[in-house]
Amino acid sequence: MNKTLKEIVKIVGGSLVGDEDVVIKGVSGIKEAKKGDITFLSNHKYIPLLNTTSASCVITSFEVSDSPVNLLTVKDASLAFAKVVELFSNVEIRHPRGIDSSAKIGKSVVLGKNVSLGAHVVVEDGAHIGDGTIIYPGCYIGYSVAIGTDCIIYPNVSIRERVIIANRVVIQSGSAIGSDGFGFAVVEDNKRRRIPQIGTVVIEDDVEIGANVAIDRARFDKTIIGAGTKIDNLVQIAHNVVVGKNSVIVAQVGISGSTQVGNNVILAGQAGIVGHIEIGDNALVHAQGGVTKDVPCNTQVSGYPARPHEEAKRVNACVQRLPKLYKQIHELEERLKALEQTKHGEKSG
Amino acid sequence: MNKTLKEIVKIVGGSLVGDEDVVIKGVSGIKEAKKGDITFLSNHKYIPLLNTTSASCVITSFEVSDSPVNLLTVKDASLAFAKVVELFSNVEIRHPRGIDSSAKIGKSVVLGKNVSLGAHVVVEDGAHIGDGTIIYPGCYIGYSVAIGTDCIIYPNVSIRERVIIANRVVIQSGSAIGSDGFGFAVVEDNKRRRIPQIGTVVIEDDVEIGANVAIDRARFDKTIIGAGTKIDNLVQIAHNVVVGKNSVIVAQVGISGSTQVGNNVILAGQAGIVGHIEIGDNALVHAQGGVTKDVPCNTQVSGYPARPHEEAKRVNACVQRLPKLYKQIHELEERLKALEQTKHGEKSG
Amino acid sequence: MNKTLKEIVKIVGGSLVGDEDVVIKGVSGIKEAKKGDITFLSNHKYIPLLNTTSASCVITSFEVSDSPVNLLTVKDASLAFAKVVELFSNVEIRHPRGIDSSAKIGKSVVLGKNVSLGAHVVVEDGAHIGDGTIIYPGCYIGYSVAIGTDCIIYPNVSIRERVIIANRVVIQSGSAIGSDGFGFAVVEDNKRRRIPQIGTVVIEDDVEIGANVAIDRARFDKTIIGAGTKIDNLVQIAHNVVVGKNSVIVAQVGISGSTQVGNNVILAGQAGIVGHIEIGDNALVHAQGGVTKDVPCNTQVSGYPARPHEEAKRVNACVQRLPKLYKQIHELEERLKALEQTKHGEKSG
Repeated sequence: MNKTLKEIVKIVGGSLVGDEDVVIKGVSGIKEAKKGDITFLSNHKYIPLLNTTSASCVITSFEVSDSPVNLLTVKDASLAFAKVVELFSNVEIRHPRGIDSSAKIGKSVVLGKNVSLGAHVVVEDGAHIGDGTIIYPGCYIGYSVAIGTDCIIYPNVSIRERVIIANRVVIQSGSAIGSDGFGFAVVEDNKRRRIPQIGTVVIEDDVEIGANVAIDRARFDKTIIGAGTKIDNLVQIAHNVVVGKNSVIVAQVGISGSTQVGNNVILAGQAGIVGHIEIGDNALVHAQGGVTKDVPCNTQVSGYPARPHEEAKRVNACVQRLPKLYKQIHELEERLKALEQTKHGEKSG
Repeated sequence: MNKTLKEIVKIVGGSLVGDEDVVIKGVSGIKEAKKGDITFLSNHKYIPLLNTTSASCVITSFEVSDSPVNLLTVKDASLAFAKVVELFSNVEIRHPRGIDSSAKIGKSVVLGKNVSLGAHVVVEDGAHIGDGTIIYPGCYIGYSVAIGTDCIIYPNVSIRERVIIANRVVIQSGSAIGSDGFGFAVVEDNKRRRIPQIGTVVIEDDVEIGANVAIDRARFDKTIIGAGTKIDNLVQIAHNVVVGKNSVIVAQVGISGSTQVGNNVILAGQAGIVGHIEIGDNALVHAQGGVTKDVPCNTQVSGYPARPHEEAKRVNACVQRLPKLYKQIHELEERLKALEQTKHGEKSG
Repeated sequence: MNKTLKEIVKIVGGSLVGDEDVVIKGVSGIKEAKKGDITFLSNHKYIPLLNTTSASCVITSFEVSDSPVNLLTVKDASLAFAKVVELFSNVEIRHPRGIDSSAKIGKSVVLGKNVSLGAHVVVEDGAHIGDGTIIYPGCYIGYSVAIGTDCIIYPNVSIRERVIIANRVVIQSGSAIGSDGFGFAVVEDNKRRRIPQIGTVVIEDDVEIGANVAIDRARFDKTIIGAGTKIDNLVQIAHNVVVGKNSVIVAQVGISGSTQVGNNVILAGQAGIVGHIEIGDNALVHAQGGVTKDVPCNTQVSGYPARPHEEAKRVNACVQRLPKLYKQIHELEERLKALEQTKHGEKSG
């Protein structure tokens, strides 16, 4: 499919500096782009690539003067680019369609319109699956699970009994939703006995969950993932955690039991959060941060134990200068000694 | 089901301060509880909730005077509460029952009494599965695997050939037991060749394993998880690791090859342990700790590289005061300079 | 099977100090070995075990004088030992053979010679699977996936549409290849909308991938794992990452989007790498390192934020001495005060 830049501007908006009659034939990354491609620039460090890219147009939200390439400046480059990708995508997305004959469907299961169940899917008794939801091969849907409309559940996902999943939820391959919380009572001689985990998990509208994630069911009540929250791969969410709306949980983060995470929170990669604390709205935990106490709204923390990010950076700068400091102190000591000796010399002199 | 507090005390023990005729109708969390609910208090920071909870009784092992709510004081609140949860649980646990027609069972497989094999389970040649063990849909049981009695293996778990699993073991969804150890020999030009991993994994009685865990088989010999040990989600256990009895391994911990972990050890979330070391009995590695050498029995370590916890805390307190220290040293230097100048002044004066 | 040390030396090379007529009956670890076993020594800290092992021969590449046990010194002990293990292995490796009747095979699928598809495998339309490749039960192979020759895909692996896997690739249980990259555009009020991830993943020759790994497909273009690279369990590789050849990525490492990792790189356990940076050839990131900027070729980094390893060690040594330093500074201050008072005394005297 070919489109002129003029046509593209009509679709995605923004203002073009360059030749609106140029014909675009495809989309690509800024490094790999060739003539006829449109690409985008979202990271400051790649601005110099404007001088070397072969793309015929670059979408960006940065202010760039004297761009050597046609430049389409928009408010949100990622969003504009997503629209362009959809426009040019010649990749046919083929989800499983219909109910495969090898799918096992229990008693009293309610399937909406246009539900797809791939090969070897298991849907246990009493489950409800809403209109247009697609379940890929090898998934397990436990008894009395409720899944809303237009969800996509990728292969080999396990959703245990009574879990509730709302609408337009996407779950990538291999994730485990509703596994038992890690709760034990010490009974004697260090032996532990499982505390029944009879609660469940609620995943609200428009949540996305990555691959090989684990979200445990609550002891009683619910582990909740709020509407619009996006969870990356290999994330651990323990029992009774409540995550708010539109938060972002990056890969390999771990959240311990009963912790509450607010709205619009970002937990960067490999961060770890202890149990029974609160992370306020709009907070940001930096990568690998180890959070041991409440994080107030609108603040950033980093390091272990996590502290206000600006303070942590200042402290870290001090730490890096320590070898110098040790020398400086040694020198101070020498000078002091010299003074003391003079003094002593004066006294004894 | 209704029970008076008097009846509950008979079942779980402990001493009640309050009205033993109060009728309990259900269980709940301390925040969510309503009139007629029994709940429990296991974390000091929630003691103030005694004043606001609507529960009709709180189980605790803390000493609380003047509780505004009926208080049942027991030695182990978690254990007592687990008993109460079981008592009131109206959640019917429905495991798969019987051998599903789509399960594939190899030659010379021995199945005990009341074994359940869910849909699409695969049991390869020569496997033994003990009485009462339940295997959920989509699990893979390799050839010559031996599983004891009364185990529960949740959906999409992969157990590779010759792995040995004892009795009352629980494995949550998606875990991989007996995958090949990460062992390679450099052959030439940085190319690596796999060293055959012909050992196996032994999981002893009463072990519980979380979701999406990976436990690798030994090069030869065995990777061993000792009786009563509890493993949380997304934990990595490398080849030839030996974990003792009744230890607790929290989510996202990684243990490298050939390391030995003692009895009653706690490895907190996201801790990492290098290979070929020993973690002594009753040791505690704090969250995100990076352990690079042996940890003696009965000690605690934290940080990276991990050090004795009290020392690490002291050092960390010093680190946080560094910006102040730099100022203090600058001031010292100024004062020293002043003295030196006076001295110089005296001399030259 | 029995072999004399003389016969073994012929096969694996190296020079023997000891009795070449000794008969070897099996292989074992150095601690567990009994008379008649051959074992190996690859870690310096185990050299004292030479005095206590019951093995009849130890393979090593260390120089050891006066070994009390027959010693076979070779250039690469691991490689030599791998050969010996293969020689003595009486463990029959039994992969699934043939096409199981429960495997679901789509339209236009091309299967090479001697392909094995285990029970309940799903191969979608248009997939190609090369000669000798073995796919274990429960795996999902998406549409138009291409897998080369002699690969082994263990149970419950999910390989999404259009992923390309070359030859002799091994993937352990439960891994997710080609899941959607974690890419969203903020549309309004903190709500995010998925940016289509229409690229794919390319896994080159001789790559090995551990259990429960996640490798995301590129936004467009390709996420690439270079030939000979070995990836351990529970590793996260985000969209558009490019890993070079013969690199080693240890368990629980996370690599963020668009980062480029060179050849012969080692990323030790639980290391985390931010997005959009380059890790140069032959670089080494130590365990739990948090890498926030480019790492030059042939360098080592550690800590968070990661710094040159030798510098980080020096800084860390300074940090550990901080409690002492604080005392030392207090003492300096006292001495300075004393001098100042004398001075003052002199002046006022």
